[in-house]
Order: sequence, then structure tokens, then C-alpha cells
Amino acid sequence: MEIERKFLTKEIPFAITAYPCLQIVQAYLSFSPTIRIRQSNEDYILTVKGKGHLAREEFELPLRKEDYERLFLKTEGTPVRKKRYLVPLEGGLTAEVDLYEGELTGLMTTEVEFPSLEAAESFVAPAWFGKDVSENKAYKNTSLSLYGMPKEE
Amino acid sequence: MEIERKFLTKEIPFAITAYPCLQIVQAYLSFSPTIRIRQSNEDYILTVKGKGHLAREEFELPLRKEDYERLFLKTEGTPVRKKRYLVPLEGGLTAEVDLYEGELTGLMTTEVEFPSLEAAESFVAPAWFGKDVSENKAYKNTSLSLYGMPKEE
Repeated sequence: MEIERKFLTKEIPFAITAYPCLQIVQAYLSFSPTIRIRQSNEDYILTVKGKGHLAREEFELPLRKEDYERLFLKTEGTPVRKKRYLVPLEGGLTAEVDLYEGELTGLMTTEVEFPSLEAAESFVAPAWFGKDVSENKAYKNTSLSLYGMPKEE
Repeated sequence: MEIERKFLTKEIPFAITAYPCLQIVQAYLSFSPTIRIRQSNEDYILTVKGKGHLAREEFELPLRKEDYERLFLKTEGTPVRKKRYLVPLEGGLTAEVDLYEGELTGLMTTEVEFPSLEAAESFVAPAWFGKDVSENKAYKNTSLSLYGMPKEE
């Protein structure tokens, strides 16, 4: 069960590049259900997701690079490329700050994964996180892959 | 974790058609890793399998019929079609007797799933089950889909 909140980040008031960074490419074998393959630096992983927004079931399987590359040829939509910076928060939480690339350049989101629904709901986000878009489908990575940059609200 | 043994069945000394039957079609989105979709009567399911023969990790996700049909178009190899008869055994176990169809007509296998490795290893199969082919890759459904009927040994 993955429980997370996502924010639409506009400005980061510190040097984000000082934090650890993952170079991520992800693409989708299927959008319904979500079957995703992701390269994160030199790691490759398959993820199958159940239904839901704030909390949903996930299954992850490590892939060999050659399996990832073969599956990549069967993906739909546009691959999503982003740099993910890992910023430690209080209480052992981590802000995953995603700076999107390619056609999505300029988009930034910040995600936090929580150990429980209670923790997710009681979390008070720093102001720089920006607007909570956890429930906004346009900012899901599946939507970004299918439809590109969301229209500003 | 799925723990099972498979047998190559040549003759069934009773009327198998008296037992409950599932009409199964399964096909593979990927063989490495194994990503399978299966129709079993009116149920549709996605299964992702980890590595191993006797025991391996599985993840299953129910599919809507329309998602199954869309994913079916992306499968590789030949779909495997079979009638699966469910024959109760002692100790709460079930023999899954598969009568393959299409190009695999004539092939019969019997599988039993066990609650533990100990149960799998101590299981004494009825004679009609036939030869234990648990470790023979040619009788895996992935191999049947990719290579068709195994050569007789």
C-alpha cells in the first residue's frame, strides 16, 4: 500500500542541486491497469499499480537492463523523464522533488510518501511545496505521459 | 509465494468431465519477466511472476474484460488454451488437470499447489498423475506459448 501526497511546486527557496539526485525515465506498458517500467539511475524496475489516488496497492519487480529495454519498445504514450531530488524532512519523511524534462520542462512536483493515512492527512507541508494536487489527475505521471503538460488552473 | 508440482498425465482412469471445469486462455505480455494475462471462464486476471520453478513469488490483479482485450493485442507467442478440471485430493489439496487445446491438443498436465515446501516435497502423487515434470522447462506454459508441443522424452 502506497500512501502519498503530491504538490505543484513553483519555486524552491534553496539550492536543490545540493541534494541526492536520481535520473528517472519511466514509461507505461498499460494505463489501465497501470503497468510501468522505470529506470532510476542504473536501477530498472517494473511496477503494477492497483486503483486509487491517495493510497493504492503496488507490486514492484526489479528488471534486468535488457528486459527493461525490450519492454520499453512495447510502451504507450510519451516516456516521462525527470530529475528527482531527495530532500529529508522532519520525522524521517523525504520530499521527492521532481524536475521534469523534455516536453514537460518547467514542471516541478513534490511528493511525500507516508507510513499511514493518518500521517498523510495530518502532514503540514512547507509553503514552498506549493498547491496540493494529490487529487488532481492531470498531475499523475500516467496523465503526463498521455496528455503532456497540464493546463494552468 | 506459489509452491507447486506439475506432472505429465497420459491417461485419466475416471470420467474427468464430471469435475468442475474452467475454460482458460492465457497469453504473455512478456516472458522475462513473466507478465501473463488469463481469462478463466468470465474472470480476467493479470499475473506477474518472479523467478524460480518449484516456488516463486506471484502478484495478481483482476482485470476488466475490456482491459484484458486491449492487453491481449500486445501479447507475444501463441495464446495457450486449455480446459482445467479441478479434482479434489486428500488433505484439502486440489489437482488441476489441464487438457490443452489447439496446437497443443493431446497434451495433459496435472498440477498441485501446496501450502509449504515441506508439503510439496512429501507429496506422493497418484500413479495416474504420470511423470513429475516440475523441473522440466519445456512444460512451463511460457515454453508452450513460445515453442509449442514439447518433444516426447
